[in-house]
Amino acid sequence: MPPVVRFELPEWVAEEVGDPRRLYGLREERMDLALRLAERNVEQGGGGPFGACVFETDTGLLVSAGVNLVVSTNSSLAHAEALAIMLAQHAHATFDLAEKGLPSMELVSTAQPCIQCYGILWWSGLRRVVIGATAQDVESLTGFREGPLPTDWAGRLADRSPLPAVDVITDCLRARACRLLREYHDQGGPVYIPGGDKKDRPSD
Amino acid sequence: MPPVVRFELPEWVAEEVGDPRRLYGLREERMDLALRLAERNVEQGGGGPFGACVFETDTGLLVSAGVNLVVSTNSSLAHAEALAIMLAQHAHATFDLAEKGLPSMELVSTAQPCIQCYGILWWSGLRRVVIGATAQDVESLTGFREGPLPTDWAGRLADRSPLPAVDVITDCLRARACRLLREYHDQGGPVYIPGGDKKDRPSD
Repeated sequence: MPPVVRFELPEWVAEEVGDPRRLYGLREERMDLALRLAERNVEQGGGGPFGACVFETDTGLLVSAGVNLVVSTNSSLAHAEALAIMLAQHAHATFDLAEKGLPSMELVSTAQPCIQCYGILWWSGLRRVVIGATAQDVESLTGFREGPLPTDWAGRLADRSPLPAVDVITDCLRARACRLLREYHDQGGPVYIPGGDKKDRPSD
Repeated sequence: MPPVVRFELPEWVAEEVGDPRRLYGLREERMDLALRLAERNVEQGGGGPFGACVFETDTGLLVSAGVNLVVSTNSSLAHAEALAIMLAQHAHATFDLAEKGLPSMELVSTAQPCIQCYGILWWSGLRRVVIGATAQDVESLTGFREGPLPTDWAGRLADRSPLPAVDVITDCLRARACRLLREYHDQGGPVYIPGGDKKDRPSD
């Protein structure tokens, strides 16, 4: 019975990020970084075509980054958003990114969070989520699935008193996010779902 | 920007489990272990009153165990079910516990999974979930929240073709699970939600 599990970003992530003190003023600059990470993740064969970053909303400082590492870490939890949220909480040594005294933080994700990452986002303390591709884009373009999200997924995040509201911003560089999904599918990138055929599983 | 995050069970978990080769034939024996872990987690001040284990369904062999470590690991992901699932996948070196050749596995959890753990369960490859307390029990007895679960949460798991069905079994040692929740509340155990008051936060 193993007592420890560990998640580590590939070394190329820090290289792709570059200067960690850079301030990403525009929303599109923030999404550009998440998309570059997703694109490179596919190039490197690390996992699915998904990237996500946590930023300080006001300053645009990067807090953490994540890419899909499901295959390389043997963990269905290792979605880009989950990694970014785990690492942001680790960076601030808190289980609640809405803790008093912390700057307001947001998740910028190349695609709409699936049911798992929606739930992780729910408890994270993040105050905003910005997405590129929609759940429908992901499902129709790749064959990945999003799970039983609430129909009004954004409304549920925005209105959940007494928990702090999470604003949802959609359609940020969506066309580029969709292009990446389409290319991944066209290249025969593996789509891993429970009980699925593993014949395409990379040997990593 | 931190590149690594790590989750480790407290040492007392292995001690409480005892012989790792023991076979837990009855469902109630499996839940008894999950409840003992939850009870001891509260005694030790490690986190919330929740425990979960993954078992091989047919043999009753314990695959992994988890307890709530949200406070001690500074991670809102560190729910008992999430830990047990991460560790079960790690033990079998797969992101899909429904992978061909593996024995069918089940999650036995002292309480109904919240929206986060429901999502994690969704992609895990587990084939059954057994619960003690319901979501309503948790919310009414402790003040913890479960999030926007689908109304027919069990039906959605049971019928999700082409993904393999996840059977749901409820009311397993529910009274004992509820007693633990009530005691935790009566003792003033901290209830951590995003943006919540941290005055009760243990100094860990």
